[in-house]
Amino acid sequence: MIERIPPRSGAAFELPRGSALTVYDPEGMQVSDLVAYSANDIREVISNGRTFDYEETIRLTSGNRLWSNRSRVMLTIEQDTVGCHDFLLTPCSVDTFRHFYPDKPEHRGCFGNLAAALAPYGVEPDAIPTAFNLFMNVPVDTSGSVSVLPPPSQAGDHIVLRAKMDLIIGLTACSAYASNGGSFKPIDYRIDTAA
Amino acid sequence: MIERIPPRSGAAFELPRGSALTVYDPEGMQVSDLVAYSANDIREVISNGRTFDYEETIRLTSGNRLWSNRSRVMLTIEQDTVGCHDFLLTPCSVDTFRHFYPDKPEHRGCFGNLAAALAPYGVEPDAIPTAFNLFMNVPVDTSGSVSVLPPPSQAGDHIVLRAKMDLIIGLTACSAYASNGGSFKPIDYRIDTAA
Repeated sequence: MIERIPPRSGAAFELPRGSALTVYDPEGMQVSDLVAYSANDIREVISNGRTFDYEETIRLTSGNRLWSNRSRVMLTIEQDTVGCHDFLLTPCSVDTFRHFYPDKPEHRGCFGNLAAALAPYGVEPDAIPTAFNLFMNVPVDTSGSVSVLPPPSQAGDHIVLRAKMDLIIGLTACSAYASNGGSFKPIDYRIDTAA
Repeated sequence: MIERIPPRSGAAFELPRGSALTVYDPEGMQVSDLVAYSANDIREVISNGRTFDYEETIRLTSGNRLWSNRSRVMLTIEQDTVGCHDFLLTPCSVDTFRHFYPDKPEHRGCFGNLAAALAPYGVEPDAIPTAFNLFMNVPVDTSGSVSVLPPPSQAGDHIVLRAKMDLIIGLTACSAYASNGGSFKPIDYRIDTAA
C-alpha cells in the first residue's frame, strides 16, 4: 500500500529489519529528506560522515550503504532510478527560510516537519542530523562550492532502501523553494515487510 | 601559553565567547579533529551540514563561519596559513581502524580520545558529530569519490578560530595512518581570551 506525504509535510514510522522502503517522487522534481534512528536506542542515528568514511564517496546510489554514528549499516540502497541524492545539507528550517528566502513567508520546513513527526518516538529536535536528501541535486564544483539545482527526478522515479536493523524513519516532502524547482509536491512511500 | 596534545591523544577545554583558539601543526603533516558544543547546553553542537548550508562551500578557510545544529555561528576562522581542512569525515575510531587497517593494532582513535576528554563535560560518545578536521586533506573528485591524502601543512602552520559563544571544545592529535602520512605527531594550541 502506498502512503502519501502531502506537500510541505513529513511522516515518521517504524521500519523493521529486513523490510524494504520504496520512496517515490510521484510528480517529478521533488526532494524527500530521510533520517533514520535505531528503534532500540534512538541515540544511534544516521551519519553522513560515517557513510562518507566507509563508502568513500559523497555520491550514494545502488549498492551503497547508509551507516550510523556507531559504525553500523542502517540501510542499503537496492534500487535507484535517479542516482542523484544529497548527504551534505541539513533539512530546511525556519532559520534557513529566513536566511535564503527573506522575502517569502516563514515555514517550519523539513526540520520542523521531522521534529513534529519524530516527537512521539522521543527524538528531540537537536537530535535531527544532516539528512539523506533523496533526489536532491547538490553539485560541488572543483573549488568546493555547493549549489542547489532542481532535482533530475521524473514522475514515478524511486529509490528502494533495505533496513539492516530495526529503524525509526523520518521522511518529508520538501518545503524549500530551491530544492524542488519552486513547486511543492507530495512524496509517496511504500513499506514491504520481509517475508 | 601553548599547550601540547601528545601524539594519538586528545583534550577538551572551555573556550569563552570572544576568545581566540590558535591550533598549530608544530612538526607539519598532522591532522587535528575539532568538535564544539555550546557551554550552556551541550545539545547544541557543531554541524557540518548547517555549515555547508550557510557557507555554501565544503572548503572552509579564513572568513568562513562554523555553525551549530541550531543555526547559530559557533566559531569564525580568522586566520589560516594552510587553507586545507575537511568537514566530511568522522573521527577515526576502533571501528575505522578495523575497517581500514585490519593488519594494524587497534586504537581508540580520535573518537575514543574525544569521548574520554569530553566525558567530564557530560558529552556522551553518541553525541560526537562529524568533526572539523584541521589540516586534513580530503579531495573529492568529479564522481564524488573521497580520498585521504597527507596534509599539506608544514611545521608552524596554524589556524585561528574566534569563539562567537561560550564553547566546550574537543581537540585531538590524529591517530590514523592515512590522515597524517603515517607518522603520529603532536598538536599545539593556544587560547587568547578577549581583552
